[in-house]
Amino acid sequence: MSVLIDGLQYANWSEKIFRQMRDGGVDAVHVTITYHETFRETVLNIERWNRWFEQFPDLIFQGRTAADVALARRTGRTAIFFGSQNPSCIEDDIGLVEILHSLGLRFMQLTYNNQSLLATGCYEAEDTGLTRMGREVVAEMNRVGLVVDMSHSGERSTLDAIRYSTRPIAITHANPASWHPALRNKSDTVLRALGESGGMLGFSVYPHHLKDGSGCSLQSFCDMIARSVDLMGVGHVGIGTDLCQDQPDSIVEWMRVGRWTKRLDYGEGSASAPGFPAMPEWFGDNRDFGRIASGLRATGMAEADAAAVMGNNWLRFFEESFGPARSGVNEQKAAAQ
Amino acid sequence: MSVLIDGLQYANWSEKIFRQMRDGGVDAVHVTITYHETFRETVLNIERWNRWFEQFPDLIFQGRTAADVALARRTGRTAIFFGSQNPSCIEDDIGLVEILHSLGLRFMQLTYNNQSLLATGCYEAEDTGLTRMGREVVAEMNRVGLVVDMSHSGERSTLDAIRYSTRPIAITHANPASWHPALRNKSDTVLRALGESGGMLGFSVYPHHLKDGSGCSLQSFCDMIARSVDLMGVGHVGIGTDLCQDQPDSIVEWMRVGRWTKRLDYGEGSASAPGFPAMPEWFGDNRDFGRIASGLRATGMAEADAAAVMGNNWLRFFEESFGPARSGVNEQKAAAQ
Repeated sequence: MSVLIDGLQYANWSEKIFRQMRDGGVDAVHVTITYHETFRETVLNIERWNRWFEQFPDLIFQGRTAADVALARRTGRTAIFFGSQNPSCIEDDIGLVEILHSLGLRFMQLTYNNQSLLATGCYEAEDTGLTRMGREVVAEMNRVGLVVDMSHSGERSTLDAIRYSTRPIAITHANPASWHPALRNKSDTVLRALGESGGMLGFSVYPHHLKDGSGCSLQSFCDMIARSVDLMGVGHVGIGTDLCQDQPDSIVEWMRVGRWTKRLDYGEGSASAPGFPAMPEWFGDNRDFGRIASGLRATGMAEADAAAVMGNNWLRFFEESFGPARSGVNEQKAAAQ
Repeated sequence: MSVLIDGLQYANWSEKIFRQMRDGGVDAVHVTITYHETFRETVLNIERWNRWFEQFPDLIFQGRTAADVALARRTGRTAIFFGSQNPSCIEDDIGLVEILHSLGLRFMQLTYNNQSLLATGCYEAEDTGLTRMGREVVAEMNRVGLVVDMSHSGERSTLDAIRYSTRPIAITHANPASWHPALRNKSDTVLRALGESGGMLGFSVYPHHLKDGSGCSLQSFCDMIARSVDLMGVGHVGIGTDLCQDQPDSIVEWMRVGRWTKRLDYGEGSASAPGFPAMPEWFGDNRDFGRIASGLRATGMAEADAAAVMGNNWLRFFEESFGPARSGVNEQKAAAQ
C-alpha cells in the first residue's frame, strides 16, 4: 500500500479544506495545533479539534499511531496528527511532555526562531545548543514517543538534537540552504547528519523557503528533491508543505511575534510584504499533491522512490516514532542504578 | 475468570501500598486523583501518577479500558483507573470532559457535598437537581465514556442523574441509609432506581458510612450487602472501600474544606473528632479483601454471587462504560437534523 502523507500544515481549518484533503487522497497530515500558547491555551486548541472530529467524522479523525494511517485509507478519511511548533505548551514542566503525548501530540519543535527553554532558534545571533532542560526534555520525548522537530532551530542546536536524541528526529518543513539560502533552510551538514541518523526531512512549499519564492517552478522544486535524495538517501525525505491555507495575515503575525515582543517582527517577510506570500501556481491546496508526484517522476525518479517521498517514508517514521521507547523500562532501571 | 476490583480508594500512595495491592490480589482500583483542584492542578496530579507508573512498572499501570483488568491479571499487576470526586477539574469548560477522558479519567462525581456547577451535594439544605450545565455535561460524559458518580450528591440530583444519563451511572462508595442513616448513605428509592437503570453501588468501609462506625462487625457489613442484593439485584453491587490509607488528617480537611470556606467544616466528623476515623479491625489495607469475600459466603451467598460482588460486576460495568457511546455519531447526526 502506498500512502500520501503531508508532514506539516497549519490551515484555517474548515469543512472545505477537510473535503479537499479527501479529494486529494491525503491519508494523513501532521497539523500544527499550537505556537506560543500556554498549556491551557493548547488544550483549548485541542478542544476545538475535538469539535471538528465530532462534526466531521466521515472526513477526519485523530491519528495516534501509524496504524491510524491504514485505518484512514481503509475508511476513506484523513488521519490528523497533532504537533507543536514551539515548546511553550510544556511551559517549564517536563511532566507535560507525557501529558501532551497522551492527548495525541506527536511532534514538538524545540524552538520557534527564538531562544527557548530548550534550545536556540534559527533567528538568534548565537546558538548555544541544547540547554540543560533541553537535554532532559529530549530524553523524555524519546521515552514517550514525541518526535523532536527542529524545523525552526539553529544549526548547532539541530546537530545537538540529532546527537542527544536516542531516536531519529525530524525537520518537518524546510529545504536545503544550498538550493535557497534562507535562515529557515538547512545546511548540507545538518541534512547529511539527519539522514545518517535515520531522521526525516519534509520539503516545504512555503514560498519563503523556495528558490524564486512564489515564482518557483515545479521542476526546480522536484530537481531539488532529487538532489536531496542523493545527499540524504531516498528513505529519509518526505513532503511537509507548510500549507497555511485560508489564513488571514494576522496569523502570520501571531506566528512571528507571539507575546515575546511589543514590536513587529517580520520574520521571513518584510515591512513591504508583511503578510502570507502567494503560493506557487502548482500548489494551492490539498488537491495538488498529484502534481508533485508527477514532477518527481519527470525528474527520472523511480515510481517506488516517488511513492516513498510522497508518504511511505513518513509512514515508516510514524511506525518507529510514536510509541514508547522499546527498551524504556530497562534503560530507566539501568540509569537508576 | 474472577477478578478483584475496588471501586474507590484515595490512599497516600507508596511502594508499600502498591505491594499490598499485589499481596491482596487486587486486579484493579478506581483511585481518586483530584477533589477541588483546577484543571491544571489535576494535570499535576496525573503527572505524579505518571512518575509512579514509571517507577513501579512491575506493580501498577494506568488502566484505560476494561481489557486492562485482564492484562493486569495476566501480568500480575494492578490496573489504576482515575476518577475525580468533584467537577472542579473541568472548571466551567465542557470541552475538558473529553480532554480528561483522553488523559484516562473514567469516573467523575458531579458534586462533592456542596452545590457545584452541575448538581447539588448531599450537605446542601436544598437540592435543585441537575443544572443546565449539569445536563449538558452528563450528555458529554455519556458520549465519551466518563462515568457519572453520585456518591456525594443529594437525593434529587442523584435521581436526576439516573434519569438524564443515557448510560448507567455509579455510586462508587456509599451504603444504604436504611442500615446506617448518614447524609452520605443512600435511600432505598435511590438504590432501587440505580439497580433498575443498570447502575452500580460500591459498598464503603469508611467508618462514617458504617453502622456502629469503626466498631462495625464484618457480619453486620456482609448482612447489609446481602440485603442490598435483594433490593438491587446481584448484578449491580460491588465494593468501593473508600480506603484512605496512610493519609494525614490534613488531607481529610482538604477534602471537606477545599478552598470554598475560610472556616473549618467537619463534614462527617466533628470538632471533637476532626481527623480520619480508625478503620474497622477486619479491613485495614488491600490485603483484607479476602475477609469480605469470606464474610459474604458466611451469609449464605453463593460463590458466583460473592465473586460478582468482589469484582466481576465492576468488570462488566467497566466494559459497558469506558468507551465512546456506540451510537454516538448517529445520535449527533439525528440531533443536528
